[in-house]
Amino acid sequence: MDRSKLIELIFSKKSFLCIGLDTDLSKIPAHLFESDDPIFEFNRAIIDATHDLAIAYKPNFAFYECYGSVGWQSLTKTIQYLNSAYPGQLFTIADAKRGDIGNTSQQYARAMFDPSSSGMDFDAVTVAPYMGEDSVKPFLSYPGKWIIVLALTSNKGASDFQFFKDNNHRLFEKVLINSQKWGSPENTMYVVGATQAEMLSDIRKIVSGHFLLVPGVGAQGGSLQEVAKYGLTKDCGLIVNSSRNIIYASNGLDFAEKARAEAAIMQQKMSGILSYSVRQSKQD
Amino acid sequence: MDRSKLIELIFSKKSFLCIGLDTDLSKIPAHLFESDDPIFEFNRAIIDATHDLAIAYKPNFAFYECYGSVGWQSLTKTIQYLNSAYPGQLFTIADAKRGDIGNTSQQYARAMFDPSSSGMDFDAVTVAPYMGEDSVKPFLSYPGKWIIVLALTSNKGASDFQFFKDNNHRLFEKVLINSQKWGSPENTMYVVGATQAEMLSDIRKIVSGHFLLVPGVGAQGGSLQEVAKYGLTKDCGLIVNSSRNIIYASNGLDFAEKARAEAAIMQQKMSGILSYSVRQSKQD
Repeated sequence: MDRSKLIELIFSKKSFLCIGLDTDLSKIPAHLFESDDPIFEFNRAIIDATHDLAIAYKPNFAFYECYGSVGWQSLTKTIQYLNSAYPGQLFTIADAKRGDIGNTSQQYARAMFDPSSSGMDFDAVTVAPYMGEDSVKPFLSYPGKWIIVLALTSNKGASDFQFFKDNNHRLFEKVLINSQKWGSPENTMYVVGATQAEMLSDIRKIVSGHFLLVPGVGAQGGSLQEVAKYGLTKDCGLIVNSSRNIIYASNGLDFAEKARAEAAIMQQKMSGILSYSVRQSKQD
Repeated sequence: MDRSKLIELIFSKKSFLCIGLDTDLSKIPAHLFESDDPIFEFNRAIIDATHDLAIAYKPNFAFYECYGSVGWQSLTKTIQYLNSAYPGQLFTIADAKRGDIGNTSQQYARAMFDPSSSGMDFDAVTVAPYMGEDSVKPFLSYPGKWIIVLALTSNKGASDFQFFKDNNHRLFEKVLINSQKWGSPENTMYVVGATQAEMLSDIRKIVSGHFLLVPGVGAQGGSLQEVAKYGLTKDCGLIVNSSRNIIYASNGLDFAEKARAEAAIMQQKMSGILSYSVRQSKQD
């Protein structure tokens, strides 16, 4: 999915919500265990119940890999369902945080972006920047696909290295500066945790036009209003992820309905933020 | 596998060779395609032909993930074969370069270390340090298991961020310093590329007792002699990986035999290095 289509989706759905499919067997409703693939059945129900409120879905690979090849089957079915049931209506993110030397990252790129090889066809993949340019560029060799580079993450350990500082910049700023040369705002986004909302104004000075994927709203304590205040652009420029708050809103028979209710709360807030920002930009 | 057992293996086999199972369908012998699982059959033949010359095997996950869940089945069969055919005789490394927020890394740890969940039971996993302590520590909650933290990698892009410098240290040094507090030489190793051999003496000043996993000898241009000169300790302290030079020595019917011949050349060099270092330490 290209940038203009993504922006169109955001403004037509009045939402910049991404739903994280961090599907954990210990948290999903008991009745789903009657199915052959409870993880996929859970995901399908969540997707069906929320697809008009969210613009993106983000399966986190760890929650599938912990079940080995069986988990990968559930993951594969999930991305295939997203693409077949709602073609062109959803942006899909492989939250895999991959990165390795060039010829190896090329194989990871096939995993995420080449359905003829892996069965999977995501729009974007999260990548770790530590190994530098050649670890990331192979993902950009697929036209229309995106990398989402870890910049400033939402966890406590973010402070261990991401704020490491030379005379001019902190490491996360160095990542933002260098990686802009690898791609463009048409194929590169950044992960910036919602728990770091006050840093977003610094980040927007470096990457004014790029989309940011913002996890950490909700369960991790980040505020949507703060994120929008510092991160929003005229194209929206934000994809805000929520996982646990939405998908585990209930673990009863009504889990999908309750997930929809939580997603709707987010979507309504986002709709307000978007319409306010549109009004404001007309006044400018 | 604990540290004393690993050291015992190294000195009894007179080898610190790790064979990288970066198994690529486009490079393996044509006759293997008669099998249902050519990747696994290739790996099994390589392992059987070289198990007495190597002390470790390191499947790189990218080469399996590019085939989706089918690739994960080949990967799972490979680690199960390593553990069942040669119990206690081989150190096994999941070269996956994972790392995410704490509750997510916990799921990755299950993937690598909990066979009751994923079917896989590696001794060690490579981890990316960018997200800091809480992204790495969940892997250390499994007794007897190891993390291998990316420090200074063998690729060109290593220079993009790993040499980023504050007043006192470069980033890879900061990673070495901080991460020593997370674990110990009993459960933590570091990745240091052979192409950075001259940096090993600086690295040994920081991590004098830790094992280093050294990729990049051979196809990537690193020298075994240089690595040993700067990196060897009284416990050996090195695991040197070779992938392409060994596993693709031939793509004919004799591929396993030729792989053995290449592994034997490495093992003989390593035997010489180890016996020289033992003689030298006796003279000290």
